[in-house]
Amino acid sequence: MTGKTFSEKLLSAKAGEDVRAGAYVEAAVDVAMAHDITGPLAFETFYEVTGEDATLFAPDRTVLTIDHHAPADGVEAANNHNALRRFAAEHGAHQFEVGDGICHAVLVEEGFVGPGDLVVGADSHSTTYGGIGAFGTGVGSSDLGTALATGELWFRVPETIRFEVNGDLPDGVYAKDLVLKFIGDVGFAGCTYETAEYAGSAIESLPIHERLVLANMAIEMGGKAGYVEPDDRTAEYLERQTGRAVDIDPSLRSDDDATYDEVHTYRAADLAPQVSKPSNPENAVDVTEVEGTEIDQLFVGTCTNGRYEDIKLVADVLEGEELAPNVRMVVVPASGSVYRHMLKTGVFETLTDAGAVIQSAGCGPCAGYHQGVLGDGDVCLATANRNFAGREGSMDSHVYLASPATVGASALYGEITDPRRIETKRYDDTILAEVEA
Amino acid sequence: MTGKTFSEKLLSAKAGEDVRAGAYVEAAVDVAMAHDITGPLAFETFYEVTGEDATLFAPDRTVLTIDHHAPADGVEAANNHNALRRFAAEHGAHQFEVGDGICHAVLVEEGFVGPGDLVVGADSHSTTYGGIGAFGTGVGSSDLGTALATGELWFRVPETIRFEVNGDLPDGVYAKDLVLKFIGDVGFAGCTYETAEYAGSAIESLPIHERLVLANMAIEMGGKAGYVEPDDRTAEYLERQTGRAVDIDPSLRSDDDATYDEVHTYRAADLAPQVSKPSNPENAVDVTEVEGTEIDQLFVGTCTNGRYEDIKLVADVLEGEELAPNVRMVVVPASGSVYRHMLKTGVFETLTDAGAVIQSAGCGPCAGYHQGVLGDGDVCLATANRNFAGREGSMDSHVYLASPATVGASALYGEITDPRRIETKRYDDTILAEVEA
Repeated sequence: MTGKTFSEKLLSAKAGEDVRAGAYVEAAVDVAMAHDITGPLAFETFYEVTGEDATLFAPDRTVLTIDHHAPADGVEAANNHNALRRFAAEHGAHQFEVGDGICHAVLVEEGFVGPGDLVVGADSHSTTYGGIGAFGTGVGSSDLGTALATGELWFRVPETIRFEVNGDLPDGVYAKDLVLKFIGDVGFAGCTYETAEYAGSAIESLPIHERLVLANMAIEMGGKAGYVEPDDRTAEYLERQTGRAVDIDPSLRSDDDATYDEVHTYRAADLAPQVSKPSNPENAVDVTEVEGTEIDQLFVGTCTNGRYEDIKLVADVLEGEELAPNVRMVVVPASGSVYRHMLKTGVFETLTDAGAVIQSAGCGPCAGYHQGVLGDGDVCLATANRNFAGREGSMDSHVYLASPATVGASALYGEITDPRRIETKRYDDTILAEVEA
Repeated sequence: MTGKTFSEKLLSAKAGEDVRAGAYVEAAVDVAMAHDITGPLAFETFYEVTGEDATLFAPDRTVLTIDHHAPADGVEAANNHNALRRFAAEHGAHQFEVGDGICHAVLVEEGFVGPGDLVVGADSHSTTYGGIGAFGTGVGSSDLGTALATGELWFRVPETIRFEVNGDLPDGVYAKDLVLKFIGDVGFAGCTYETAEYAGSAIESLPIHERLVLANMAIEMGGKAGYVEPDDRTAEYLERQTGRAVDIDPSLRSDDDATYDEVHTYRAADLAPQVSKPSNPENAVDVTEVEGTEIDQLFVGTCTNGRYEDIKLVADVLEGEELAPNVRMVVVPASGSVYRHMLKTGVFETLTDAGAVIQSAGCGPCAGYHQGVLGDGDVCLATANRNFAGREGSMDSHVYLASPATVGASALYGEITDPRRIETKRYDDTILAEVEA
């Protein structure tokens, strides 16, 4: 019998039985999350399952965020926000407010999730938590409601696809470029119901904020989860964020002889900055293929690339400069913490001086609700994760996805621009520690 | 024959004939403004009137702003924004972008309007310009489209109601309190199609940013226009804003023996901070009558009270403090200039440190479109100008109107609070000059 993958080991541990990919298990959930769209529906199921008892499986591990329609962009949104507030007050769940940020940013930054946790979120990008070695996955509102009630949920143990990148990443190539490349190679359904495991020396060298990008976008190839093996860097990051010591269970790592459904291997030196053309993340091409494409709007933010390090990359490019006259830029930090860091370090003023508009933390225009929705014919270059037709507004708008470095360079020139045309840094996680100090 | 009012003199001058209240005239427009809701409709009329010629009456005096749905909160809004951009590029009009701010703030701050101008805006709060001695009035989109084409529009010369306040204003009583009191006294239709002229030593002592509040809310009692006689303070303010010398035509002032439809006289010392209860601005009462009313949301902004001095009053109260735990606060600066001043002076960080969320400049949730819409049962205390049922969201939400000082005090205590309970300053216009220096 060969070894096991992380996903097999983790779901075995949470189910209390020794299982392999393909098995169906009932597993104990560590953390459950819902937001302002999915929460109210989840509560309905919660009350159906719990009946009069109405007790949360673990109030201290239940997190509710107001992020998708924050601040409220309509009466329905406002009512949903109030429903979250009432539910949290009544049942003792953690509830974050308008401006606190996107669920996936908040859960990691505030220490709700750690390596080896089973995290279910009523949001598709819940794969993000794999960036710090958790098994994070998105579930529907009724599944989430059941988990809130029982602390358990059924899973099919997923197969795993391994993406291995070795060597030193070239200048201008970031985690976002890697994951766009992977999605382009396997297709938007190429990892359906499987775990996307990211490994190799180039991945190991990535700071946590970049690892989170890889895990976050696993869903864009259909992934059930994303996974980067946690290491000392993970522990240090989490200890800095939470002030608590973090123990990483070495037995939860994929075995060397684990069975992978597919293994894709890359030489870091061969990789170039990527851009996903409209209207599918799988339409990834080398940036050189779309250089010169005219842009109307730039969007910097989302659970994928709305972290401080991402926004600072853009600000570095725009320091003392102005946006190209033909473009507008909307910046929506992923969390209130990112927003405050931007204020503290001058990143905020650099961006507003350059002509960007900055909104309070949240999902922004990512899903086309508000804060910069696209009109007919608008072309947008975004640090976001999805570019399906109509995702960010009009069915006749066109969204290109790229890294913050590519977005920054393009902001300066007013057209899609190869970030290797300018100097871009790669930030370590310690930059945040410096800001906080 | 008695003397004439400002409105009679101004419309006589712009019509080129000697007219009195009640006369119908065709008058030459100095400045025409439309925003992202009213602009596209006005353009249709403009093209109908001009035919193939399609020439603006005065491109340099035509101003288009993107403020009501800024940033775009839907595809229709985004398309409207693009329509403004295209029209401005094609015809040479001034066009302001997302984040530049509310029309009425921008036109004053950027020097598009001066004393003695006839200003038509496709927005009801175009009465604002009376705060610097212009005749400003709101018109429908088709009227505005006609003005864009011909530079002329018909008017019925309005009668005038004079509100005279003499003496020194007590602590805690601001222009907002005065105008709420006036509206309460005459009723929401008490000044219909008349000019509200504000005079007396207390009014003369007001800085420009407060005079603009008086004129702005003339429409809340049905006023065709609001008016404060321009003086040296007006000239100094405008010279600071624009860097140009400003000439005030003394012949355009109301004559001492002008005929007024009504004269309301107040002793400043008798006045108290006012709050307008839901759901009509005319429901003004002394703040003491509603003290202790619980609040869910505080909204600081709008063309009425979203200027730097207003927001600084709120920040003064919250300096080093936190919002009461039961309330949320949304701050939306009236202009990009106000936003930048807030960043420069630390007002921005004071407010975010206290727990407020700040959006890019624009109308914010004032009209219930986005950025903090109210849900069922929500109670809001706002520096805004209207509190009609459903104006800021749910038909079952409840909006109270007050001055920035009252909103600041209430933010601290989490309930409607008499601003005289704390120390509040009265800012002179020079505070802005200091910031800019």
